[in-house]
Amino acid sequence: MSKIKIGLFGFGVVGQGIFEVVKKAKNANAEIVKICVRNPNRPRKVEADASLFTTDAEEILSNPDINLIVEVINDADAAYNIVRSALLKGIAVVSGSKTMLARHLPELIEIQKTHHVALLYDASSCGSIPVIRNLEEYYDNDLLLEVKGILNGSSNYILSRVFDHGEDYDHALRQAQELGFAESDPSFDIEGYDSLFKLVIITVHALGTYVAPDDIFTYGISTIHDSDIRYAREKGVKIKLVAQVVKVCDEHFTMFVMPEFVSPSKYIYSVDDEYNGVVIRGECYDRQFMFGKGAGSLPTASSILSDIMARKHDYRYEYKKQSYVDKPEYTTDITLRVYIRYRETDVRGILSFTKIHEQYFSEESNYLIGDVSLSELLAKRDRLSGRDVFMANIPMFFLDRDN
Amino acid sequence: MSKIKIGLFGFGVVGQGIFEVVKKAKNANAEIVKICVRNPNRPRKVEADASLFTTDAEEILSNPDINLIVEVINDADAAYNIVRSALLKGIAVVSGSKTMLARHLPELIEIQKTHHVALLYDASSCGSIPVIRNLEEYYDNDLLLEVKGILNGSSNYILSRVFDHGEDYDHALRQAQELGFAESDPSFDIEGYDSLFKLVIITVHALGTYVAPDDIFTYGISTIHDSDIRYAREKGVKIKLVAQVVKVCDEHFTMFVMPEFVSPSKYIYSVDDEYNGVVIRGECYDRQFMFGKGAGSLPTASSILSDIMARKHDYRYEYKKQSYVDKPEYTTDITLRVYIRYRETDVRGILSFTKIHEQYFSEESNYLIGDVSLSELLAKRDRLSGRDVFMANIPMFFLDRDN
Repeated sequence: MSKIKIGLFGFGVVGQGIFEVVKKAKNANAEIVKICVRNPNRPRKVEADASLFTTDAEEILSNPDINLIVEVINDADAAYNIVRSALLKGIAVVSGSKTMLARHLPELIEIQKTHHVALLYDASSCGSIPVIRNLEEYYDNDLLLEVKGILNGSSNYILSRVFDHGEDYDHALRQAQELGFAESDPSFDIEGYDSLFKLVIITVHALGTYVAPDDIFTYGISTIHDSDIRYAREKGVKIKLVAQVVKVCDEHFTMFVMPEFVSPSKYIYSVDDEYNGVVIRGECYDRQFMFGKGAGSLPTASSILSDIMARKHDYRYEYKKQSYVDKPEYTTDITLRVYIRYRETDVRGILSFTKIHEQYFSEESNYLIGDVSLSELLAKRDRLSGRDVFMANIPMFFLDRDN
Repeated sequence: MSKIKIGLFGFGVVGQGIFEVVKKAKNANAEIVKICVRNPNRPRKVEADASLFTTDAEEILSNPDINLIVEVINDADAAYNIVRSALLKGIAVVSGSKTMLARHLPELIEIQKTHHVALLYDASSCGSIPVIRNLEEYYDNDLLLEVKGILNGSSNYILSRVFDHGEDYDHALRQAQELGFAESDPSFDIEGYDSLFKLVIITVHALGTYVAPDDIFTYGISTIHDSDIRYAREKGVKIKLVAQVVKVCDEHFTMFVMPEFVSPSKYIYSVDDEYNGVVIRGECYDRQFMFGKGAGSLPTASSILSDIMARKHDYRYEYKKQSYVDKPEYTTDITLRVYIRYRETDVRGILSFTKIHEQYFSEESNYLIGDVSLSELLAKRDRLSGRDVFMANIPMFFLDRDN
C-alpha cells in the first residue's frame, strides 16, 4: 500500500483530531480524501476544505480510490452499518466505536476472516494507551492472568475531584461536563458502560473469548454518597471505578466493572483526573502498568494514527488466542467481598450473603460488608441500582482466593 | 512455521527462566531442542535433560531442525559471533544481549535486510516492558518527542534503599549483590553502561538513528555521597539514574545517561526498587508511562517468549523509521543545568559554564549549580569521574528550552 487514502466518518472532537494528526504525520503518507458527516455546515474548530465533506456514506464506500475507512461516529447503529458494509466490500477499517464493537465483535471478526480484511480499533480502548495491540501481539501467550484498570476518564476525573479536592459529586460532575470529559448525558461514563464495552473488547484480545456485555456485572458511581467517601477516607483508600478480567484458575476467568476500594500500594491508586491506567498481570512477569491519556481529541487521534500506519504494513489482528487450546471459560461463580451502603432498600433480603463481616446502622444510612457471589450480583443488579444503594468491591478476599 | 524448534545459547539465570517459561506456554508450540553452554556440569537450579546440552555451537548452528536461535549469554563477543553466524545462515535469532546489540546493531540490521532474516530483542531493553516493540510498531510516527526512563534495576534498587530506607550506599550495594540484582562487578550497572546500551537500542526504534555508545555522555552513581543525598532530600527530590533521548527541535535530538533530580510530580519518581519505568512523550498523546520488572530470570524470559511467539507469525522489525524523511539528527549542542559536588577536582577549571547559579563551599565538600553544554560534558567526562565528583542533571532548564 503506497499511499493511504482515507475516507473519514465523523468530524466531531475525535474526527477533527484525526484530521490534524494526519497532517502532522508527514511520514505516514496518508491523506484524508473524504469526510462523511451529518451536517457539513455545523461550525467546527478545525477547518477542512468544504469539498472534502459529504453527507452520503456511499460517496466513501463506493470510491475505489479510498483504501482505508476511519470511523469515529457516536451513533453505534450507524457505525455498525458503515463498518460492516466496508468490510464486506473488502475495505480495511479503523474504528473507535467501543459500543458498536462490544456488541458486534463476533460477527465482525468472522467477516474479517471470511473476507480477508482488516478491522483495527486500538483507539476504542484507553485512547492513547496501546492496550489492544500489546495484548494481541506481546502478551500473546499462556502466562496472562489479569487485566485490570481504570478505563474511563470521565468517571475517574469526577472521583479524583471528590477524593483529592474535597469537591462534592454533583459539582465535580458539572465540572467534568464543562471541561468536555463527560457527555451531557453522562450515564454512559458514570454507570460503567463505557468501561464495560472496553473490557469486552480487551477480553477478546487478552483471553480470546467474547463475553456479551449483558452477561457482565456492571455497577457505576452515580449513587456514591458523602458517607461512602468518608468511609473510604477513614480506611485510607480511594474509590475508583475499576474494570477487570481475571483468570481465577486454569479453567475459568471472570470479569466485572464496579467501584473498588483501592489502597495506596496499588498502581491504579495514583491514576487520577482524566487519566487511564491498566495493569497487566502475568505468571512470570508479575505486573506491567501502562498509564496515559485515555480520551480526548488528540490522544485518541494519535492512537487512530498508529492503526492507520499499521495498515501501511498490512497489519491485522489475527485473534490467535481464539484458537488456543485449554482456553479458560467465563464464570460468575466466584465470591466477592463487597461494601454496600443503603438506606431503604432491603439489601439483605435481595442478596444471599455467604458471610457478613460488618454491619453498621445509623439514622442517616447503613452499610454492610459481606461476601456474595458475582452471579447473585449479576442476577439482582436491577434491584441494587436504586438511588439509595452504593456498592464497592473490596479486593482482598478476591485476591486471597486468587493467590 | 508450525513448530518452533529452539537452539538456546546460555543457561544462566535468564536461560533457565526461558526453559521454564517455554514449558509453561502450552500454546506457543515451541520446544528447546538443544542448549549450548560452556560447562554442562555446572550445578543449576533448573534441571534439563543432560542430552539437551552441548558445548559446541556448531551443533546448534548446523542443525537443520532448529528454526530459531535464542541467545542469552553474557560474553558480548561470543554473542556477536553466534548471532552474526546464525543470521548469515538465514536462521532467525532472539537475543537478550544489550551490550552486543548496542555495539553491533548497524551491521546486524544490514544483515537482516540483505539476508531476509529476523533478529528480535525486546528483552534486551527493560525486560518485561515491551518498549522496543511499542516504539517499533505503535509509536511509529512523527509525533514522538522523547523516551526517558529508569532502565537499570540494580542502580535503581540501590538508590531506592538509600532514599526510602536511609541506608548508606555501600550497604545498599552489598544488599543488591546478595539479592542478585547487581553483578559481583557492579560497575556495568552503576556506572550507567547498562542504561546506555539500552538507550542506544531504544533510540534506533524511537527515532530511526543509531548513535554509537562512545558518543553519548554517560555518568553513573558510584560516586554519590551522603551530602548529595542530603541535598536532594532538602529539595524534596530523589536522585535517579535516568536515560533519555529527546527531540530538542524538529531537526535535532539529544541523548544522555546521568543521575537526575526527580521531583515527586514526575512519573519516574515512584519507580522504586528493582523496577523499570519508561515515559514515552509525543506531540498529541502527551505522556505514556510503562512500568514493570526490568530484569530477573522470569520477567526477562517472558519477554523472550513474546519474541519467540512473534516468530510464529514471521514477525520482524522493519526499522521503518530509518527511512523516514526529515529525520532529526543527533546533537550534543544543548545546554544542561547540572548539580556538581566535588572536593579537590577543579571542576570550574575543567568545564566552561555558561552560567553559575549557585556555589557552596565547606570544609567537607563543595557544590555548584551551573549551565554547561552537553558537548563539554562529553569531551571532559574522563576528568569528571574521579572519586570526589558527583553530578546530577536538574531537568527544569532543559525542559524550559524544550517547551
